[in-house]
Amino acid sequence: MIVETAEISIKAGEEAAFEAGVASAAPLFLRARGCHGVSLHRVVENPGVYRLLVRWETVDNHMVDFRNSDDFQEWRRLVGSHFSAAPSVTHSRLVADY
Amino acid sequence: MIVETAEISIKAGEEAAFEAGVASAAPLFLRARGCHGVSLHRVVENPGVYRLLVRWETVDNHMVDFRNSDDFQEWRRLVGSHFSAAPSVTHSRLVADY
Repeated sequence: MIVETAEISIKAGEEAAFEAGVASAAPLFLRARGCHGVSLHRVVENPGVYRLLVRWETVDNHMVDFRNSDDFQEWRRLVGSHFSAAPSVTHSRLVADY
Repeated sequence: MIVETAEISIKAGEEAAFEAGVASAAPLFLRARGCHGVSLHRVVENPGVYRLLVRWETVDNHMVDFRNSDDFQEWRRLVGSHFSAAPSVTHSRLVADY
């Protein structure tokens, strides 16, 4: 299992609108090929930064299938105006779960 | 729910030993006050870096209760020699799970 970690800095004052946008966009992820769920977290030490964690079967399910889909454009339309910088996106592979 | 994210760079060639150390240490986390699970992930874009994600009820369960416990010393004894740098540790609060 692959976890996409997107670190997203949000413009001050637009946090609630961003969170609402993520809620609206959640079905786009959940119907994407190979997506097994998405969660939104807010960094305690830096509350202007959120972490969106998306579980995928493969990196390509994210970087090829989803990124090239209309739903990706819709995701960015719903939330992109709240970003204060380009998100930092990485992937990690689950090694073990205890 | 709080997620501790520890980014841990591992000395080249010691990845398997580190993973085995995490497996040995998992019970230390699972018996810690307020701990609800731990998972180990390896960064795809930078395989020398792991992410340890630990679910806690509160930040203090990690930073006060666990950090001051003998089990934290044991955790570091099991895996610390494999670190190539001091881990980067942050916490995030779950906003929503879809």
